Amino acid sequence: MKKLMNEPGAYVDEMLDGLCAAHPDTYRRAGESGRVIARATPGFEGKVGVVSGGGSGHMPLFTGYVGEGLLDACAIGNVFAGPTVGDCIDAMHAAERGAGVLCLYGNYGGDRMNFDMACELTALDGMQSETVLVTDDVASASAEESGKRRGVAGIVYAYKIAGARAEQRGATLDDVAGSARKAIAGCRTIGVALTPCIVPEVGTPNFTIGEGEIEMGMGIHGEPGIWRGELKQADALAGEMLERVLADLDVGAGERVSVMLNSLGATPHEELYILYRAVARLLDAKRVSIVAPLVGRYATSMEMTGASLTIQRLDADLETLLRAPARCPFWSH
Amino acid sequence: MKKLMNEPGAYVDEMLDGLCAAHPDTYRRAGESGRVIARATPGFEGKVGVVSGGGSGHMPLFTGYVGEGLLDACAIGNVFAGPTVGDCIDAMHAAERGAGVLCLYGNYGGDRMNFDMACELTALDGMQSETVLVTDDVASASAEESGKRRGVAGIVYAYKIAGARAEQRGATLDDVAGSARKAIAGCRTIGVALTPCIVPEVGTPNFTIGEGEIEMGMGIHGEPGIWRGELKQADALAGEMLERVLADLDVGAGERVSVMLNSLGATPHEELYILYRAVARLLDAKRVSIVAPLVGRYATSMEMTGASLTIQRLDADLETLLRAPARCPFWSH
Repeated sequence: MKKLMNEPGAYVDEMLDGLCAAHPDTYRRAGESGRVIARATPGFEGKVGVVSGGGSGHMPLFTGYVGEGLLDACAIGNVFAGPTVGDCIDAMHAAERGAGVLCLYGNYGGDRMNFDMACELTALDGMQSETVLVTDDVASASAEESGKRRGVAGIVYAYKIAGARAEQRGATLDDVAGSARKAIAGCRTIGVALTPCIVPEVGTPNFTIGEGEIEMGMGIHGEPGIWRGELKQADALAGEMLERVLADLDVGAGERVSVMLNSLGATPHEELYILYRAVARLLDAKRVSIVAPLVGRYATSMEMTGASLTIQRLDADLETLLRAPARCPFWSH
Repeated sequence: MKKLMNEPGAYVDEMLDGLCAAHPDTYRRAGESGRVIARATPGFEGKVGVVSGGGSGHMPLFTGYVGEGLLDACAIGNVFAGPTVGDCIDAMHAAERGAGVLCLYGNYGGDRMNFDMACELTALDGMQSETVLVTDDVASASAEESGKRRGVAGIVYAYKIAGARAEQRGATLDDVAGSARKAIAGCRTIGVALTPCIVPEVGTPNFTIGEGEIEMGMGIHGEPGIWRGELKQADALAGEMLERVLADLDVGAGERVSVMLNSLGATPHEELYILYRAVARLLDAKRVSIVAPLVGRYATSMEMTGASLTIQRLDADLETLLRAPARCPFWSH
């Protein structure tokens, strides 16, 4: 296992130390366990709090997106393991500014269980909360069972859009949850994996795959995908990925979308742009306009090789929220 | 070779297509060959042009740093191969706004030869130019032969500082070259490599290295380093890297520096922050203050695993230039 780390058990806490040391104007550690990242400067009094959570090993997700116009706080677990109930509660308290808290996170069983319990327990103290699950991974369940789909890279759009709505003075918890739901309703992702990654405390690759093989639709923790087979050229892969996403998302001529080409970690920027080129040409042929595309690392699996494609359908309202200012080291628009 | 690409020979041009398609407000292709990236909107009349160039395979270097407050134009070659003389000339013309052009690039033989010829040929047309070489890699030659050192990730600081100086109305070519030289005089880098990368048109790894081995001081094209041996823990590596850099750069208590922890490609953000934590603690113990640190991917070798540490010594003037606004998708400060 070739990782630049100290003791495997210290991976997450040392990473959080470094994150907060590097960006003290953006992040601070909060919560009893220190496994909550909150804004260094809290949002305004009366602001709806936006909270997320998830496992470590996906940087910039999840903690990287704490910042003005994005998340107020985030609970983080061990690598590929969800946050504890206590950390979810602490994140909610860190985000609470008197107008309730939106819990916005990926649809994974453990995270749901813990956040649900956190919402129940904070409700006893009078905290108002609302939950919106991100379910953008088209490969993880059929359209008929879309509620079972996992959340992957598309969560970044949900953060950005809900985060921007929550910065508007007077926005209610219903308003912010509504914007998050609208974003998610128009967001679909599919990934393709080329090589595995290693969870530090495990020490061996999280799956095995042949020399010339890829897996279409694999999840960000190595969850099984749609097919495994020979590596194809980038244009063919981009075409298939776009087709699978658009089969599930109604986007037609004259519409506007944002496109995210996300590296799972090791895949370089060069190759993301080769994929982007193909996707942009195909969308152009369909007379779909791309605005504010995101090409880079947004939701990774450490050193995994591969990429995901996300399409976020926009209307005027969502586009305004997507383009609104936001401040964190991982958001450059 | 598991790469998300089409024909290996199309890797660079398709990547540039994608880059410009994704960010048409920032970049445009220029030059006869299309291997020059210039600002979509040129700098003001009378601005000193800042030009760079180098091989592909290092994104965001080199072309990614074209933008307001950064480079005006950049000539780009094949993967790990320098730009042609013609492309250097075209980049200089694309950057020329009537006050001369600074050619600011890494100290590699081929790049020097071609840029030197380009400067001679453009001088015949009356273009004023100045050359400043980036030589930040302490592992590539001794302090006595520092002029032989290669340029690596520290070039990003030189771009930022020279680019900011060039945006100041009235700044002359001498002023801009002077700021670049001052930045470089206070900038040192060392890298550590864990795994190789694959040049698309070659198809095999650019070097071999054992399962548990690393190479301290390896260059970004796989140039030999200082020692090869067993992988150490992150704190020990960070300590050695910092020591080697500071042995060569006079930075004492009360001084201010910027620190860059740069991934060579595959090394994830988590591990960069673990390294950053160690470096920040060591500098803190020396009472050296870190400002505006950079943690991420700035100068990569595609999917290589490893990291580099750069220390940029700052005075008030350099710090102002470093913090000045800049606009490109790869600069978020």
